[in-house]
Amino acid sequence: MKVEFWFDFASSYSYPAAMSVEHMAKRQNLDIAWRPFLLGAIFNKQGWQDSPFNLHPAKGAYMWRDLERVCRESGLSFTRPSQFPRNGLLAARVASAFATAPWLADFIRAVFTANFADDLDISSPSVIARCLEMSGEDSVAIIKAANSPATKSLLREQTELAYQKGIFGAPSFLVGKELFWGNDRLTSALSWAVNQGN
Amino acid sequence: MKVEFWFDFASSYSYPAAMSVEHMAKRQNLDIAWRPFLLGAIFNKQGWQDSPFNLHPAKGAYMWRDLERVCRESGLSFTRPSQFPRNGLLAARVASAFATAPWLADFIRAVFTANFADDLDISSPSVIARCLEMSGEDSVAIIKAANSPATKSLLREQTELAYQKGIFGAPSFLVGKELFWGNDRLTSALSWAVNQGN
Repeated sequence: MKVEFWFDFASSYSYPAAMSVEHMAKRQNLDIAWRPFLLGAIFNKQGWQDSPFNLHPAKGAYMWRDLERVCRESGLSFTRPSQFPRNGLLAARVASAFATAPWLADFIRAVFTANFADDLDISSPSVIARCLEMSGEDSVAIIKAANSPATKSLLREQTELAYQKGIFGAPSFLVGKELFWGNDRLTSALSWAVNQGN
Repeated sequence: MKVEFWFDFASSYSYPAAMSVEHMAKRQNLDIAWRPFLLGAIFNKQGWQDSPFNLHPAKGAYMWRDLERVCRESGLSFTRPSQFPRNGLLAARVASAFATAPWLADFIRAVFTANFADDLDISSPSVIARCLEMSGEDSVAIIKAANSPATKSLLREQTELAYQKGIFGAPSFLVGKELFWGNDRLTSALSWAVNQGN
């Protein structure tokens, strides 16, 4: 049974989810389908030109404190990024173009770690190159493919698909048509998948 | 150690939290301070004239499905209210005026049950009267006190206090200055209180 993991590299709560989802799924014999999309494009459709965490300061202040607690509870390094949200477009294009590559999960975790633990600018091609090279991959060839018109279309289509499926935030989990939103629903989504598979 | 439970009678996720918070707190020798407030007034300050669940249909559709799952998991009756959000002003005034009454917790649970399990209009004085009478209380005297100018001021002040404390949604939990938002944070809030008390 596959669990679709819909995420955005800029999304704060996607960080703890992305770091643990594969490990937790494997313990229940579940596979993850990684589904990068651009949450900003979905926010734009709702008339927001920025993250709701920036538009609503009380909610934003709470989120950073809560994320710090969540990361501490799960033993995850965390540094509040000096810029938020960061532009995850290039990383999302890489993840779209190489959706089934054996190194993809490591790359995704490396990018989230860069953004939320090491406070690095993930919009920079050199940071993305380093995340690829950590897995021993040819960053030049991969980034070239990620910037191709075909990949750009693919990511746009995937974002439109997220919208069509009722996704309004990240991370989200889809098990068939059943939608779960937020890092807090990771366990429920996996349980749902286990029960569907039986 | 006291845990402040900030809630709104119209708030959907306040329902499962209100139904379980006292029971769960008692198991850890914690007391609950019930803190009704008017979430709509805080939404208004953000420029919203309605619940975000109504303003954003995808988020609203998800919330109702998720709440149904959450209630099922905790064995709680649930009927999607035919009107949302309902006006919880009278109920909130009762809860403000009688914040330390021995019957208050039962009354609060009765009102949430009326709204989210029995689909009753909690803005109706007769529904509120019935919720009071279920605990054997004199509903006429209580509703009269709830509608006094002093109680109206009290609830307004409590709502302003919620805003000053950084509360932006319901349910919220405050342990000293530490804020937890959402039914999903009930367990974390109680754990925090236990650790603070030691």
